[in-house]
Amino acid sequence: MARRYETDGAAIYARSFAIIRAEAALARFGEGEEAVAVRMIHAAGFVGLEHFIRFSPGMAAAARAALQAGAPILCDARMVAEGITRARLPASNPVICTLNDAAVPALARAIGNTRSAAALELWRPHLSGALVAIGNAPTALFHLMDMLKDPACPRPAAIIGCPVGFVGAAESKAELLASAPVPCLVVEGRLGGSAITAAAVNALASDRE
Amino acid sequence: MARRYETDGAAIYARSFAIIRAEAALARFGEGEEAVAVRMIHAAGFVGLEHFIRFSPGMAAAARAALQAGAPILCDARMVAEGITRARLPASNPVICTLNDAAVPALARAIGNTRSAAALELWRPHLSGALVAIGNAPTALFHLMDMLKDPACPRPAAIIGCPVGFVGAAESKAELLASAPVPCLVVEGRLGGSAITAAAVNALASDRE
Repeated sequence: MARRYETDGAAIYARSFAIIRAEAALARFGEGEEAVAVRMIHAAGFVGLEHFIRFSPGMAAAARAALQAGAPILCDARMVAEGITRARLPASNPVICTLNDAAVPALARAIGNTRSAAALELWRPHLSGALVAIGNAPTALFHLMDMLKDPACPRPAAIIGCPVGFVGAAESKAELLASAPVPCLVVEGRLGGSAITAAAVNALASDRE
Repeated sequence: MARRYETDGAAIYARSFAIIRAEAALARFGEGEEAVAVRMIHAAGFVGLEHFIRFSPGMAAAARAALQAGAPILCDARMVAEGITRARLPASNPVICTLNDAAVPALARAIGNTRSAAALELWRPHLSGALVAIGNAPTALFHLMDMLKDPACPRPAAIIGCPVGFVGAAESKAELLASAPVPCLVVEGRLGGSAITAAAVNALASDRE
């Protein structure tokens, strides 16, 4: 049946990525980074996003190696967790979001911070070697950086830091990129969000386009 | 404890909305529309989004009335469903996403369309008077418009049509706005997505900022 629109999922992806590669300024990305940038642009529906994407050296390789080795993916928001395509994960990697844990509201009061930040305290048993995916709350990213100032805190393998918005997002991401306690990927400025963050995870999880 | 960043969730929201109202061009929105546009800009982290936001006449009022009356919210993607703040819903409205229903893959093959489009066939029992929230797949929005060409198909109260991306998104939203089978809200062009869509639902669900 002929329709006025494309109905084949694979064809939609292929045409989308071709449009992005024709329009976006991707030359500065390394071989392991370009496909990640393309998928982030795809999720945002926005050619131009690439100008705000920054990888610290070795981030893409570190994240890919961690995922291949079975690392858990730690998400600050349920929307990020929902955006991760399980079929792309190389080792049935656990996708963990602790935001709705019953312990979080009391933890938030105890540490005087948001629930999004307090939820990260529950990441500690999973944090060593993990891939962190923060796509919503600047307070979560700030709190993670403070946790990592303690040498006794386990180190994740890499951090995707893409909180979105008008208060703290730009500042938290600038601080992450400047301090880079582990290899990291950010979208500078106000842009970010769960779809872009999940897209970065999905790109790092599999070379399949 | 003094920190280098704001940790009070309510203060973060208030300052974010103040920044948006200072920077964005909101004058053309009606009284029931402005708060919706503000929350969509907030979710996108992008002042400028307002230029692409279009309400058909009466959409905001129709959507609010439907939600007050207990209408279900029908979402094309799990990320949209996760982004809806349950505490803001005025009538414990059901939030329904049929994408992962076991019947969907076979339905998609049967109708020769994507799973996102096929999932809408399972909306029929819930569609009358519902608020539709499409934030991911252009094929879902196209298929919904085709379903509504049948006079026997139940009518939703309103449609938020904000699929994102490079193939079909702009076209599907232009067609929705031009045909407006029921009152609708779109983000014109490529921009859109689950966060913006859920933000529109959250704004229509409650006047509380």
